[in-house]
Amino acid sequence: MKMIIAVIQDKDSSRLTDALAENNFQSTKLATTGGFLKAGNTTLMIGCNDESVDEALEIIKDNCSQREQMVAPISPMGGNADSYIPKPVKVEVGGATVFILPVESYFQF
Amino acid sequence: MKMIIAVIQDKDSSRLTDALAENNFQSTKLATTGGFLKAGNTTLMIGCNDESVDEALEIIKDNCSQREQMVAPISPMGGNADSYIPKPVKVEVGGATVFILPVESYFQF
Amino acid sequence: MKMIIAVIQDKDSSRLTDALAENNFQSTKLATTGGFLKAGNTTLMIGCNDESVDEALEIIKDNCSQREQMVAPISPMGGNADSYIPKPVKVEVGGATVFILPVESYFQF
Ligand code: NI
Ligand code: NI
Ligand code: NI
Repeated sequence: MKMIIAVIQDKDSSRLTDALAENNFQSTKLATTGGFLKAGNTTLMIGCNDESVDEALEIIKDNCSQREQMVAPISPMGGNADSYIPKPVKVEVGGATVFILPVESYFQF
Repeated sequence: MKMIIAVIQDKDSSRLTDALAENNFQSTKLATTGGFLKAGNTTLMIGCNDESVDEALEIIKDNCSQREQMVAPISPMGGNADSYIPKPVKVEVGGATVFILPVESYFQF
Repeated sequence: MKMIIAVIQDKDSSRLTDALAENNFQSTKLATTGGFLKAGNTTLMIGCNDESVDEALEIIKDNCSQREQMVAPISPMGGNADSYIPKPVKVEVGGATVFILPVESYFQF
């Protein structure tokens, strides 16, 4: 038995928990702030059997990997939109920091 | 030394933390959502000596086990209460998912 | 690799996370209530290399140790402030409860 602790970005959170649930992984979401990732983040605890760790990691990777996104920057002046069309810029989003902790025993009451 | 992580239902939370405190177990409550249990849940971290793990588990079991409860269902129409007396239905409440993690060292400053 | 879980007082929280960040430790703050310490508390998760655990503990100790503080007590009656000057009293503030957990593996996606 292992406890997977995954710190991910808020925006990837529901996609990941849905994908985990579809594959029969149960996760608990902890409210977290600041930290390992720059933007607002979420910490998930996932309890799983030793033989399912790789599958869980694969799901986390598929849904939360760091990637580039084009975003329209906010016009610096707020001013005359007709004369100024801001170019979209690349930003990095997503990313996951994942710790696998050993579990000595597990109970369900 | 062990770290007990118990995911329980919100409704069992204060009863459990009270029972733990009466038995000299210190717990920290983490705000959590979704996850291992269907209803709103709470995660408790309990640090305890190796020889006290069984006692802590007993307290969790006594206060949070899954059980059936009779609840009056909400009238589907909201309508004429005189002519419609809803039969109470059984629902499952409570339940605890508990992980025991090894602790390598412990400090108090 | 280790996971340091530190339960500290809210009032020491930003000072500690700043000090950790200056020393290249990444921490995630979990919203917590009640528990190991009497006043409102915060739980930090800090992932760190085996060889950096002592340095992280030193930073936690320096920023969160239990200490005495003089506080002006609230006048019991709210009443005549001219005739009653409350003597400051010593209270204990701060304190940290720290668990070091083993980490089996660590991933960054
Ligand atoms: Ni195992
Ligand atoms: Ni031990
Ligand atoms: Ni290690």
